[in-house]
Amino acid sequence: MARTEPDSTRRINRERILRLLRIHGKVARIDLARMVGLSPATVSAIIAELIRDRRVGEVQGEEASRARGRPKVMIELVASTACIIAVKLSINEVQVALGDFAGGVGATEIITIDSRALTAGELMATIGDAIADFRARNAAGFGPCLGIGMAVQGLVRGAETLAWSPALGVRDVNIVRPLAARFGLPVVLMNDANSIAIAVRNRVRYQSVDNLAVVMLGAGVGMGLILGGQLYDGSTGAAAEFGHSKFQLDGPLCMCGKRGCIESYVSDYALHRDARTMIDLPARNAQHPSEEEMQAICDLADDGDSRALTLFEQAGRVLGYGLGNLIALISPDLVLVTGPGVRAYRYLDNGIRQGLADSVVDTLLTHTRIEPLPWEEDLAFRGVVGQVLDRVPAP
Amino acid sequence: MARTEPDSTRRINRERILRLLRIHGKVARIDLARMVGLSPATVSAIIAELIRDRRVGEVQGEEASRARGRPKVMIELVASTACIIAVKLSINEVQVALGDFAGGVGATEIITIDSRALTAGELMATIGDAIADFRARNAAGFGPCLGIGMAVQGLVRGAETLAWSPALGVRDVNIVRPLAARFGLPVVLMNDANSIAIAVRNRVRYQSVDNLAVVMLGAGVGMGLILGGQLYDGSTGAAAEFGHSKFQLDGPLCMCGKRGCIESYVSDYALHRDARTMIDLPARNAQHPSEEEMQAICDLADDGDSRALTLFEQAGRVLGYGLGNLIALISPDLVLVTGPGVRAYRYLDNGIRQGLADSVVDTLLTHTRIEPLPWEEDLAFRGVVGQVLDRVPAP
Repeated sequence: MARTEPDSTRRINRERILRLLRIHGKVARIDLARMVGLSPATVSAIIAELIRDRRVGEVQGEEASRARGRPKVMIELVASTACIIAVKLSINEVQVALGDFAGGVGATEIITIDSRALTAGELMATIGDAIADFRARNAAGFGPCLGIGMAVQGLVRGAETLAWSPALGVRDVNIVRPLAARFGLPVVLMNDANSIAIAVRNRVRYQSVDNLAVVMLGAGVGMGLILGGQLYDGSTGAAAEFGHSKFQLDGPLCMCGKRGCIESYVSDYALHRDARTMIDLPARNAQHPSEEEMQAICDLADDGDSRALTLFEQAGRVLGYGLGNLIALISPDLVLVTGPGVRAYRYLDNGIRQGLADSVVDTLLTHTRIEPLPWEEDLAFRGVVGQVLDRVPAP
Repeated sequence: MARTEPDSTRRINRERILRLLRIHGKVARIDLARMVGLSPATVSAIIAELIRDRRVGEVQGEEASRARGRPKVMIELVASTACIIAVKLSINEVQVALGDFAGGVGATEIITIDSRALTAGELMATIGDAIADFRARNAAGFGPCLGIGMAVQGLVRGAETLAWSPALGVRDVNIVRPLAARFGLPVVLMNDANSIAIAVRNRVRYQSVDNLAVVMLGAGVGMGLILGGQLYDGSTGAAAEFGHSKFQLDGPLCMCGKRGCIESYVSDYALHRDARTMIDLPARNAQHPSEEEMQAICDLADDGDSRALTLFEQAGRVLGYGLGNLIALISPDLVLVTGPGVRAYRYLDNGIRQGLADSVVDTLLTHTRIEPLPWEEDLAFRGVVGQVLDRVPAP
């Protein structure tokens, strides 16, 4: 039966099976057939081909399928089938990581640069050299490199250009064209919050959440939006600038140059600025306080320091108010709060609830759940790796 | 060739052609073929069938196709092929109108009720009787009635239930089930702002605007969102409550019971409340000032009354700030401001620009256009009529 399908249908089904294995990990043939909505015979034929080509392998399931049955044979991807170079650009840092065919992320390198001082040419040379060096050292043992995925802080326009970034002194840098030309590979460029939203939505747990907002707390305040099951970033990629929606017009100065943005109350630099107003903390880089400096404020809260507790409760209230506007405008099913700033979520939580209660009528509030998501550094990498794998045909 | 297509494909193509005729009005066969992406022969065969069934007719085009050629023969829908009953529920009013097969709206009746005093049963009996009377008087001369489309102020849940409405004293009224049971017809229930957004997007001019926000100024402040070319109303229909996003937590009291919602500055009741603070105006219904009362304030602005001009400029500034948050979160391609409140747009405009400039960084502002759309009373009717026509197969 399967043999009579047109080639294109077979290719599509093959890609769908690979994608399901990427999301679910180890899956039995019969469950794959159910998920993909094809007959077990068709799926078995495709799997046989994928095993022959060494794209997937068989492994023993961890649990027996029935109490007295044999352990199920599970199918999983062969991670080394191909690799993807994942890059993250943030303030004063280029990070490079190796993505694999299973969507996982392995070896990572960090290059420290003076990102705001670079010209566009210097930036692209730095990133290109970092990729070339990294690839030479890390891609051995993997099949072909399928592409480059890059996640950036800032505003991506037209899928190619970094229009503006807090990491850069220059604007409107076409990132995709020079990398594609230098390496002869497809290049995916995304805002880091969008990339994280995609990585989160690709998890089994969030696969059925069609309207999902992922709010990133950290150096800035970002958001990635999944609406109707798809990434929503507007026609220009400029959507979801949650951090620059407003709490109050005459509020504190924001890095963007306006006053009263949510980011100017809740980001790391805002929390550190406010903490230093109340608490005697050593002065370092006001624009980019370190994880240690932020953790130190959290530690004070852990010790019951009322100034630190007040700081987080007030910031939480602003965040809750901002989420109230988000709920009024978009009413997502779920808001996940993540990013390094989630370190203080337990102290923000009360304020968030209060800000929501102050700003949103009950009828609108009942639908949207708000939850913290523990922060993992490689989420942005996973998102762009997933995007490259989704867009490039499997080898 | 066309005869060998499977029935389902032919039915889909037929519906697509009917839909294009609904949007574009009179269209020549050759242009229809181009729009729908089918061969002229296939389209001609479908048109021949539609003419035979009296669903469409031929008319002379208004212009000659070439300077010396004959006038083009155009195809248009036969409006009387079928009818749709369209209903609008707002504060103290039920309006009923007759929609036709071409998506047009004809005869309209208004029934005045004490909407906030009704029980759910009384409400449904009133609406049902209004529909039955109206249909008996107006549907003669039309083919079958395809369905009932109802646009309501308030929050629609699960496509059947009016969860909350400023027009009602009761909550959670299932509107669809009793009407469907009484009339044996499909019933479409929508928030009025969503219905208006659909009607606007169905216009030729806005067909290619994929991310469109239609903001409604009037008794309240509503919004309908088209995102990625589709109506976006969240999983529950509760999205796009732009009027209840916030300007300032401690601002004026809003009808929703919270303070500082955009609606509490920009809606008719808010403008009238603020006008009466400065200007000696007769007291009437503070919650629902009439069109004449609102027009009177506009007339003062026309005469250069600085108090009226200040009123609108301040309201415009709040609206601009609210649109700034909308742009930060969604970055639509186009925001159309309409509703009865657009009567004062020329006086709001300056304030809107100022509010936007105060709240949004330039890089985010450049993409979104903001324009007034002259208000037409039957837009909400057109939206639900279009929805019924889209969902019910043509007779």
